[in-house]
Parts: sequence; structure tokens; C-alpha cells
Amino acid sequence: MASNIPKDHPRYLSLMTRERMADALKRGLIHETGLIAHGRGEAFDYLLGEKTPDVADEAARVAAAHLLLAKNPVISMNGNDVALAAAEAVELAGAVNAKIEVNLFHRSPERVSRLVRELEAAGGKGVLGENPDALVSGLSHDRAMCTTDGIHSADVVLVPLEDGDRCKALLKMGKTVIAIDLNPLSRTARGATVTIVDNIVRAIPNMTRHAKILSRVDRETLLEITHAWDNEEGLRRVMEIMVQHLSQASFP
Amino acid sequence: MASNIPKDHPRYLSLMTRERMADALKRGLIHETGLIAHGRGEAFDYLLGEKTPDVADEAARVAAAHLLLAKNPVISMNGNDVALAAAEAVELAGAVNAKIEVNLFHRSPERVSRLVRELEAAGGKGVLGENPDALVSGLSHDRAMCTTDGIHSADVVLVPLEDGDRCKALLKMGKTVIAIDLNPLSRTARGATVTIVDNIVRAIPNMTRHAKILSRVDRETLLEITHAWDNEEGLRRVMEIMVQHLSQASFP
Repeated sequence: MASNIPKDHPRYLSLMTRERMADALKRGLIHETGLIAHGRGEAFDYLLGEKTPDVADEAARVAAAHLLLAKNPVISMNGNDVALAAAEAVELAGAVNAKIEVNLFHRSPERVSRLVRELEAAGGKGVLGENPDALVSGLSHDRAMCTTDGIHSADVVLVPLEDGDRCKALLKMGKTVIAIDLNPLSRTARGATVTIVDNIVRAIPNMTRHAKILSRVDRETLLEITHAWDNEEGLRRVMEIMVQHLSQASFP
Repeated sequence: MASNIPKDHPRYLSLMTRERMADALKRGLIHETGLIAHGRGEAFDYLLGEKTPDVADEAARVAAAHLLLAKNPVISMNGNDVALAAAEAVELAGAVNAKIEVNLFHRSPERVSRLVRELEAAGGKGVLGENPDALVSGLSHDRAMCTTDGIHSADVVLVPLEDGDRCKALLKMGKTVIAIDLNPLSRTARGATVTIVDNIVRAIPNMTRHAKILSRVDRETLLEITHAWDNEEGLRRVMEIMVQHLSQASFP
């Protein structure tokens, strides 16, 4: 990937991430609409000040507790997720003993395979998704395809950057759904059991950090952590932060 | 360009615009990162309620006055600008007697030429940019390239969707900079002389409308209009509107 963004540009990291996404499009890892979706996320990240707020850190801790308590935790990865945080997701899967399954909104077998290979190159073992043999109920066929051992039998599913309909369908199947979504107004953010309103590149490593600490506490304590979480209140706190950014913005 | 979006869809214009951008990528008019920037704009436009607020209408009028007062006004066009508003920019150039210059963040001679041809097809005459012979001071070479007759000697430059560094560099050269930027927090929005926080597809025709009215008033009145503008206050008013949208969001 060639880049001519000057290293001293004040928004170097954000611009480099854009280049990474553009590169992922060329490599057939993401869909065109994934690029537009990434841009929408950028805007909301801007309103967060491009850093993890306390409430998102708390949500990441609660999410880590859920994953540690789960019998069959699964991390669902789409094109944008893989392009942005493949290695990070593999590390989280290791920390909470979760499976990884590639699951796409705009599904093509070729793209699923490319993403599985990408996750394997990042250290992922036994990545699921290439041989779907089950369906998420309540979704049209292509959107519903998943694996029996993975998403279909999962009790806790982490869905970074998920579509609202699929989030809702997973909840209806009785699963605990952890979402990572920068838009606190989205249907996914509002519907999930735990919503981490944060950039995936910060949120996943943060979950791993919490998981490593929480792996040493007892089951009782983990249950307390998950029961204490009020997701609606969490979203309200995030929106307050965004409102603060908009209304207290200082001028040069 | 094929589309099956129903005309009565409440978000018809936004969805059609998305298709137009995807089409522009395939035609080599825009860079992949332009699609991301578009998504970012979409999020801020959503916070505006996808309509022109009064304050953006006022800014468009002030901008039109600046362009009419200018000795050498130049409209700087990048890929997204051309994809979204080529004909509109040509009409504005006619209304204020401005030059048009293609100026890219991700410059390639081929793309500059394609964009010049696109503007010519939309009725543009003598579109500049293919033969840069001058530099904007304070920028790295590729980003700095411009023409002597155009941007380099311009007293007023309209930069829709501009990078913060280039906006700053143009201001340092003593130019009046008019920005169109949906993000009121961006460095471009904060730095520009006049910032129109609005979607380019609404803002440019709106400027043309104002320019046609203002072309009949005297120089004194135009100067009064430009002097009365407080850009910082304008940005505050826009942010208030976005804050209202964020804080009045209801939960299911």
C-alpha cells in the first residue's frame, strides 16, 4: 500500500485508516458501501473526540465479562471488521476462548474465503464461515447463513459494525448481543444487550485488556458486572458527550 | 447508472447521491477515500435534518457577495465536488464570473484531466488545473500544485470539501477562503473566512440564487454584507441545530 500522506499531518492516523480501507476495497475484502459506512463512523468518532469515553470503557469491561461467562462465545466479523481489526480480533478470541466466524451483509463465497484467509494470516485458527450449514431465523436467506458450531449455537455474539436487522434477529434467538457501533442512534446500538460506542480499533484491544484482568476473578463477580449494566443509560451518556463536543467546541 | 430506488422514498435524494458517488468511483472521477469522506458528510447532514438551515443560507449569501466583489474569484473543484455538483459549479462560475480550477488532494494527471473533461461536458469553459505552473506556499509539492492565473493569483477562493492544511495555506497567502463543509468542527470549517455548513448539492445552487439577486446591488451594499458576517457565530448556530437533533433523539 503506497501512501503520500505527510506524517506530520494532524489527522495522520485517521487518514491512514482511510487509506487502509481504500486498499481493502481494491483487495476485495470490503464492499463499496463499506467505505461509505466507514465514513459515517468517522463522523461520529469525531464527535467523541476520537478517543474512548469512560462509558465505552465500562461497556468494554461488561462485554468482556459476558464473553468470559459464555459457553460458546462467537466473534462475528464482516469486511470492515477484518480490514480494521483482524489481528486485534484474533487476540481477543484467544483471551476469551471465542470462535471467529466471517458473516457478511453483502455475501459472496469468494469474499468470505478472502476474509477467512486474512484472519488466518493474522493468526486466527479454525475461522468459521466458509461452509454455512444453518440459518438465523427471521432473515432473508443470504443474510441468514451461518454455521451450526458458530453463530447458530452461540450464547454470546460480538457483532462489530452490525446491520440493525441482523442484530434484532440474533436477540430474538435469545442470544446476548454485544455491539460495537459509533452511532448511538442506530438500531443496532439501541437494540444490543451491550453497546460499545467506540471505534473498533480502540474497542477490541480494550476488551482484550479487560478480559485479561477479569479472567482472574470469580464467576460471581463477572455476573455482578454484567447485571449492573444499563445499556440505555450508557447510550444516553455517550450522546451527552457528543452534545458536549458539539456545543462546547472551542475556536482557534 | 441504473437505480431502483423509488422516487417517493423519504431518503430518495440521499440514496441517489450515494449511487452517483459509487458510479463516480467506477468512472475514475473520485478516489476511494472520497467515498469515505462522503459517508462522513452523510452523518453530519443527517444531524442537520438533511436540509439547509437559515444560518447556512445566510453564509451562502455572504459568500456570493465575496465572489461578486472579487477581482479574480476561483472555484476549486476536487473529485467529490465534480461528482456531486459539476453543472451547479459551472452555473455559479457564470453568475459570479469566476474561474474553475481542478485541484486534488490525491493528485494524478489522469484524474485531473478526466475531471476537467467532466466540467467541460457540464458547460465549463477554460477549466484550469491540467497545467500547474505555481505552488501554494507551505504545502508539500503534490498538494501545492496550482496555476498562476487561477488559485495562485485568486483573491477569493471557493473550496468545497477542502483539506484543513490547504485551507490554512490559502488563508496564509492572504486570500479570502469560502468553505462548504458539513462538519462544523473541521479545521477547514473553523479556519475559513466564510463557512457554509451545508450539503454541496444544496449549497452551490443556493449561492447562485443569491449571486443573481446580489448582482443588482451596489458595491457598498456588498461590502456591508461581507463585513457583517461573524463566521464563529455562524458555526455556533449550526452546532446548536445539530445538538438539538442529538439530544432530542427518543428511545424505543
